[in-house]
Amino acid sequence: MNLKMAALYLFLLFYCTLLTFGQRYQPTWDSLESRPLPDWYDEAKLGIFMHWGVFSVPSYNAVWFWNNWKNGNRDIVNFMKRNYRPDFTYADFAADFKAEFYDPKRWAAILEASGAKYVVLVSKHHEGFTNWPSNYSWNWNSYDVGPHRDLVGELADAIRNTTNLRFGLYHSLFEWYNPLYLRDKANNFTTQDFVKFKSMPELYELVNRYKPEVVWSDGAWEAPDTYWTSKEFLAWLYNDSPVKDTVVTNDRWGKGDICHHGGYFTCTDKYLPTTLQKRKFENAMTIDKNHWGFRRNARIEDFFSARELIATFAQTVSCGGNMLMNVGPTSYGTIQPVYEERLLQFGKWMRINGEAIYSSKPWTVQQDNATRTCWYTMKKTETATNVYAIVLDWSDTNYLYLNAPITSSSTLITMLGFQDYNFSYSKVQPSGVNITLPNISFSKIPSTDAWVFKMTDISN
Amino acid sequence: MNLKMAALYLFLLFYCTLLTFGQRYQPTWDSLESRPLPDWYDEAKLGIFMHWGVFSVPSYNAVWFWNNWKNGNRDIVNFMKRNYRPDFTYADFAADFKAEFYDPKRWAAILEASGAKYVVLVSKHHEGFTNWPSNYSWNWNSYDVGPHRDLVGELADAIRNTTNLRFGLYHSLFEWYNPLYLRDKANNFTTQDFVKFKSMPELYELVNRYKPEVVWSDGAWEAPDTYWTSKEFLAWLYNDSPVKDTVVTNDRWGKGDICHHGGYFTCTDKYLPTTLQKRKFENAMTIDKNHWGFRRNARIEDFFSARELIATFAQTVSCGGNMLMNVGPTSYGTIQPVYEERLLQFGKWMRINGEAIYSSKPWTVQQDNATRTCWYTMKKTETATNVYAIVLDWSDTNYLYLNAPITSSSTLITMLGFQDYNFSYSKVQPSGVNITLPNISFSKIPSTDAWVFKMTDISN
Amino acid sequence: MNLKMAALYLFLLFYCTLLTFGQRYQPTWDSLESRPLPDWYDEAKLGIFMHWGVFSVPSYNAVWFWNNWKNGNRDIVNFMKRNYRPDFTYADFAADFKAEFYDPKRWAAILEASGAKYVVLVSKHHEGFTNWPSNYSWNWNSYDVGPHRDLVGELADAIRNTTNLRFGLYHSLFEWYNPLYLRDKANNFTTQDFVKFKSMPELYELVNRYKPEVVWSDGAWEAPDTYWTSKEFLAWLYNDSPVKDTVVTNDRWGKGDICHHGGYFTCTDKYLPTTLQKRKFENAMTIDKNHWGFRRNARIEDFFSARELIATFAQTVSCGGNMLMNVGPTSYGTIQPVYEERLLQFGKWMRINGEAIYSSKPWTVQQDNATRTCWYTMKKTETATNVYAIVLDWSDTNYLYLNAPITSSSTLITMLGFQDYNFSYSKVQPSGVNITLPNISFSKIPSTDAWVFKMTDISN
Amino acid sequence: MNLKMAALYLFLLFYCTLLTFGQRYQPTWDSLESRPLPDWYDEAKLGIFMHWGVFSVPSYNAVWFWNNWKNGNRDIVNFMKRNYRPDFTYADFAADFKAEFYDPKRWAAILEASGAKYVVLVSKHHEGFTNWPSNYSWNWNSYDVGPHRDLVGELADAIRNTTNLRFGLYHSLFEWYNPLYLRDKANNFTTQDFVKFKSMPELYELVNRYKPEVVWSDGAWEAPDTYWTSKEFLAWLYNDSPVKDTVVTNDRWGKGDICHHGGYFTCTDKYLPTTLQKRKFENAMTIDKNHWGFRRNARIEDFFSARELIATFAQTVSCGGNMLMNVGPTSYGTIQPVYEERLLQFGKWMRINGEAIYSSKPWTVQQDNATRTCWYTMKKTETATNVYAIVLDWSDTNYLYLNAPITSSSTLITMLGFQDYNFSYSKVQPSGVNITLPNISFSKIPSTDAWVFKMTDISN
Repeated sequence: MNLKMAALYLFLLFYCTLLTFGQRYQPTWDSLESRPLPDWYDEAKLGIFMHWGVFSVPSYNAVWFWNNWKNGNRDIVNFMKRNYRPDFTYADFAADFKAEFYDPKRWAAILEASGAKYVVLVSKHHEGFTNWPSNYSWNWNSYDVGPHRDLVGELADAIRNTTNLRFGLYHSLFEWYNPLYLRDKANNFTTQDFVKFKSMPELYELVNRYKPEVVWSDGAWEAPDTYWTSKEFLAWLYNDSPVKDTVVTNDRWGKGDICHHGGYFTCTDKYLPTTLQKRKFENAMTIDKNHWGFRRNARIEDFFSARELIATFAQTVSCGGNMLMNVGPTSYGTIQPVYEERLLQFGKWMRINGEAIYSSKPWTVQQDNATRTCWYTMKKTETATNVYAIVLDWSDTNYLYLNAPITSSSTLITMLGFQDYNFSYSKVQPSGVNITLPNISFSKIPSTDAWVFKMTDISN
Repeated sequence: MNLKMAALYLFLLFYCTLLTFGQRYQPTWDSLESRPLPDWYDEAKLGIFMHWGVFSVPSYNAVWFWNNWKNGNRDIVNFMKRNYRPDFTYADFAADFKAEFYDPKRWAAILEASGAKYVVLVSKHHEGFTNWPSNYSWNWNSYDVGPHRDLVGELADAIRNTTNLRFGLYHSLFEWYNPLYLRDKANNFTTQDFVKFKSMPELYELVNRYKPEVVWSDGAWEAPDTYWTSKEFLAWLYNDSPVKDTVVTNDRWGKGDICHHGGYFTCTDKYLPTTLQKRKFENAMTIDKNHWGFRRNARIEDFFSARELIATFAQTVSCGGNMLMNVGPTSYGTIQPVYEERLLQFGKWMRINGEAIYSSKPWTVQQDNATRTCWYTMKKTETATNVYAIVLDWSDTNYLYLNAPITSSSTLITMLGFQDYNFSYSKVQPSGVNITLPNISFSKIPSTDAWVFKMTDISN
Repeated sequence: MNLKMAALYLFLLFYCTLLTFGQRYQPTWDSLESRPLPDWYDEAKLGIFMHWGVFSVPSYNAVWFWNNWKNGNRDIVNFMKRNYRPDFTYADFAADFKAEFYDPKRWAAILEASGAKYVVLVSKHHEGFTNWPSNYSWNWNSYDVGPHRDLVGELADAIRNTTNLRFGLYHSLFEWYNPLYLRDKANNFTTQDFVKFKSMPELYELVNRYKPEVVWSDGAWEAPDTYWTSKEFLAWLYNDSPVKDTVVTNDRWGKGDICHHGGYFTCTDKYLPTTLQKRKFENAMTIDKNHWGFRRNARIEDFFSARELIATFAQTVSCGGNMLMNVGPTSYGTIQPVYEERLLQFGKWMRINGEAIYSSKPWTVQQDNATRTCWYTMKKTETATNVYAIVLDWSDTNYLYLNAPITSSSTLITMLGFQDYNFSYSKVQPSGVNITLPNISFSKIPSTDAWVFKMTDISN
Repeated sequence: MNLKMAALYLFLLFYCTLLTFGQRYQPTWDSLESRPLPDWYDEAKLGIFMHWGVFSVPSYNAVWFWNNWKNGNRDIVNFMKRNYRPDFTYADFAADFKAEFYDPKRWAAILEASGAKYVVLVSKHHEGFTNWPSNYSWNWNSYDVGPHRDLVGELADAIRNTTNLRFGLYHSLFEWYNPLYLRDKANNFTTQDFVKFKSMPELYELVNRYKPEVVWSDGAWEAPDTYWTSKEFLAWLYNDSPVKDTVVTNDRWGKGDICHHGGYFTCTDKYLPTTLQKRKFENAMTIDKNHWGFRRNARIEDFFSARELIATFAQTVSCGGNMLMNVGPTSYGTIQPVYEERLLQFGKWMRINGEAIYSSKPWTVQQDNATRTCWYTMKKTETATNVYAIVLDWSDTNYLYLNAPITSSSTLITMLGFQDYNFSYSKVQPSGVNITLPNISFSKIPSTDAWVFKMTDISN
């Protein structure tokens, strides 16, 4: 080896080191937020959220049962008084969390059939009960009591072995009634025993053991991210964790961070903007209109219809978001038929209209000015822009007027699922297109909920 | 009073006495079957069946769980082995039958919203557990153990106080494992201890206490009606019981009676003839395709769609039957959302199309020869015959050809729920009518499941 | 055969027939009470009573828990309020009657070690729960719910296979809350449904199946024996039952019968006369001072000491009675150590002093006039009368004066268990004997509870 | 202030500092063991140990149930198989730990009646379940699950408010199945997560909150005291804890420490030497011969008799030890009668013979050479030495020969509880005394178990 070669070698060595180590993320928001969001997430559009835990046992008033009870919610207080012995505690419910019908492969099949591309399972909610055998939650986890199974691990395996979905985990940083947390809180968060002994060890354990590609953090709002050591965790997650290349995270990492810092934004529950968002967001949406957990006393009117869910989804995707649609499994381990029905109704729609959704991008226009119940998405090819108009209300008349698209001479208009038919249309000045609707027999209409008109070669 | 008047008086006295007492039914099928079926029943067309009991606790494999278990059904044997201690018995399930959310008024509201006109609640199934505090089933009834409530009485009150539905009761004559029954059976039914000590006292108690207007008997097939003393019971029911004027009964009163003797016929479960029946029948139909009781592990694919139920119903009514559509409530006392959804879907259809159903009569034709998925009903006015064609598949083309109706010059054709529109049509020779379907916007079509064409002044 | 022989033959035939059939007992007290008490019973002296049932589950306030609860007993009402959900019923306790440690052979061994010669197990108490799989108490018996075992049958077998004890059964005729009974009672016992459908079928079943040699009836006091058909039952029991030759019964067969009619007399619970009774009686005695069932919250002071029990026993036997000493087993199937200790203390005393007890007869004197805590029994040989003085308090002085015995010249005085020592004594005028007590080392004294002086050849 | 005053001031400052800080114990055995044992402990002689926890629920095979089960103990494996569903875990037992009858004042009264002067309650055994609401054992403690009470705190209050007993606590350092412990162990105790996060925080919490005057450590044997940081804890306990002046501890603080380091020695369970010990020791003795926890299936033969317990106690005290006699309360919160009986038998003996026990010292001789079942204690007055001979077997003869005591001319010999009687005796050469036993009526003998001869003015 001569000198030149040695110099080159040294240069390459330095350069590669830089590549490898120089890009390490620092525990600052500037550095952490410089990481690009992995592509798969934006392409996926639809995920399924699953809220499961000890709250699934009373399955009444759902996920916040414990907190509402302690705060004197009259319904819950009466429910307990009528049905349980006086000294029954929330922890006593765990024994009846049996999950005897839990069949993760069946869950995976249902989730995939919904058209979703990822799932986010609650690993631990504010109640502090871990759905996996955590080293830090002895005898208050799904392996030691109740189901006596590793609920998280079994679903992770099933999702990975039998579907193409990505597997993610929800994790609550705080625990309402963990005495260590309550003490830190009483100390105005100047002590961090709870973070050191419980929440952080647990979160590292979760990531190392189950390799979630979504880390959906929650329960951070009472204390700053410096208390939670969230930025340090994220730096590790992005630099060194087993999922560093593909993991995405949200924005719930400390008081004040939500909608300001982190990975994608969740902002509020059921966040549904009407305009294009600058940053990737996720609409955490429910199927039960008001609740995240299974409720035994739910009525059918408490559930959104497929049509309402698809409308929300169209708007969400059009404005640049993903939708994470929530299912509340039962304490015995099933997805209740009404949930399954909504998922399959969704999936049926997606199989026909998925072209307008998956890997689509927001168009310049989101909501049509004239037909207010029409939302746009777009796909660019090398030579053209195809626009998808997702129409939520079928026209009363025999034409459909859309204000936004400016057709070109080569524009073709078709309806997804209605094969081999080019709709006749007329360009409208100064803007828009008037599409003629033929006499389509009810038996041939591709959906009863929302219809997608595909328009090729659209300027604008 | 002169003599003539006295004679007339005596004659009337004798005649009225004859009317009152002379018509007493005798415990023979000839006499019992001479009683006309009370009108309300044929007019009602739709009833809701409810299977509720201790089997609602395992809510697995449903109503025949106990029998299947004892007969070695492998799924159940494994289910028990995996989830219960070795000596757990069927009776042990009763403690978990809590019905804590049981709200009979809410049930009544749902049942009424389905469009049904009567309800038949299981008072006691083959397991022998009585859903009321029977004097003859001490500590094996819903008042002493489990719910600690009079399930039958509470629903009876709610139905009567808040709806216009009629209240009926299912009652199983035999009890799989009642030792008295088993002994009678071992004695080849030459002894009747079970009938004397248990089933008959109980049935009289039921009728006297809850005054059901349907007595839906079952579980009679192993022994003749002479063993059960069924005919004596029916004679009492028709002559002297508190419901003698309005009660209807079915045909399950003894070995060999089914489809041969009794009140209306049930023949087999889900009895669905394709032709007009000579005797009033009832199709005992399920919403869960294969099961009568709530099943925790049911999948959405296990339930009939609204469309399938309506199709079955149309055929049933057309052939002269009623349909008794079954719901399996949960052990905690609710009607699961998927059941409620089907009931409400049914009710929505009935609100639009009820004119073709309630108080209708079978027409001369039931199923259209040309359009096989079309079933007819009829209503006669003083001057005309109106025929209703219930069409289950929307035509692919822009006309609908029906083979049976012979229109007159005054015939008008309309579609229920599609107001103020007279369909143009042409009479077809030798028989039938060709109806022209206009371009009906999807947003105006009255149903997604079945459509009723009303044709006035039809000959034939 | 000549005529004389024939006449003799006929006479014998007639005579034997008379012997066999002519002595059949009639259902009248005169006839029933003409039956001699089988010898074994008077010879046995000591039996063990066992109160076991659903009441063993709360094991609080014991056997009358249910009745006391319903009658508003404040302790029980509070106990239930504090520890159970509001709608918990008595029947709900049955599920926790598990008897998992029930080892009938071990029970048999303990019972035999107590020195008892018979056992009387509660087959069904006033709660109506049968400790055997009765045909007439479906799902309210120990086989269908709770232990899932035939408690009666298993003990019967163990007692018979492994000991020389006789096996008997307690049976309550009435059941506090059986609706059939309550109705008969409301009808002033003019109806007998409860007797026909429940208590008598059950009692015949018990005798036929388990062949108890004691039928210990109870719960008859609210209605006359004509309501219960007790005399008819007894006639069958004495004439035709499988235990007709050896069975003994008590006096609780109807209102007013107690202490007046039946087999032996029980009169009141813990009946303890101070004088010789004309009729054989049984002192139904408890070890727990106030309760018949196991009580979890019992204190040691609530139990009689061995000394107190032996004192009661001595008096009972002296006055012509048997003692039936009660044990309350636990819901998990064991005899609690404190009960076992008392039984073994009793047995130890009986092994030393049994000669004065078993097969003894009352003497002319029962309680010594001078030494009030001395009770006599007697045994006659062909030539002599031996008298046993059971002394309950050891003399403070070095002699013991007894007022009743009149010694003869051949009288020898010994102490059971203190071998080979003839006590010196002096005859006292006009009556009694003065026995000299030597310096007996504490280590040689045969008992710490009661001592038996045997005096041979006593006149009087 | 002049110089002298200043010098004095400085001297005093130094001196007080020395007083305050100079005596601080260092975390070395030399320093820790230089602390004198508080007097109360040696004077007390008798303490009561109480083993209570989740193991009290199965109450089978007792305290090591979990470990034995996991290690495949056949009895336990079968017990679980027969009585529980297949996936039942040890943690599931906690729900049935109800303590509904727990009455700490009643316990205190029983404990005091036994003659004991201190009580040591298990606060947490190897199972890790804390009998108090620990901050470090969330939802695996008696407040969150099971009893829903602070078992430790309630007994501490009752003992202090109603008795003169001292209150102590047992605490297991290790927890068989705590995952943090298992990981430290797998790391060969090079990590200390378990100690930092669980056992030490808990132990400090215990002492600060309940101020136990005995800290009875256990479960240390798998790891050295450096892993446990035991010496640091003890230094804090002796220097700064709220019980620094009166607390006593034992010798179970790390592998190899037992019988070598710490406070008093326990050496082995039921440590019972036959000779005088150099260091104060405690015999951890049981009443159930083989078990520490309540066993539902225990037989009376499994319990030591009062006599056996008193014999062991006499030997223990004679050799310089205390006895800590164990009681296993029930899961429902009571002290079973057989335990209470032994405690009261003990107390009765102590009320008569306590003079020979409390505040006594070992004599020069422990066990009498001639009468092997005689053990000595001693009390010194200012002028004399009184020796107490605790005689376990009553002599067969009318004299008692003791080999050790050398009487003086002023020696009087009496028997405790046998008032106002001076025994005649003769001095024996070269050593010993021969005591004449008069004819003592059985009714006057002060005990049936052991007798104390008090001999005043004994040389030797």
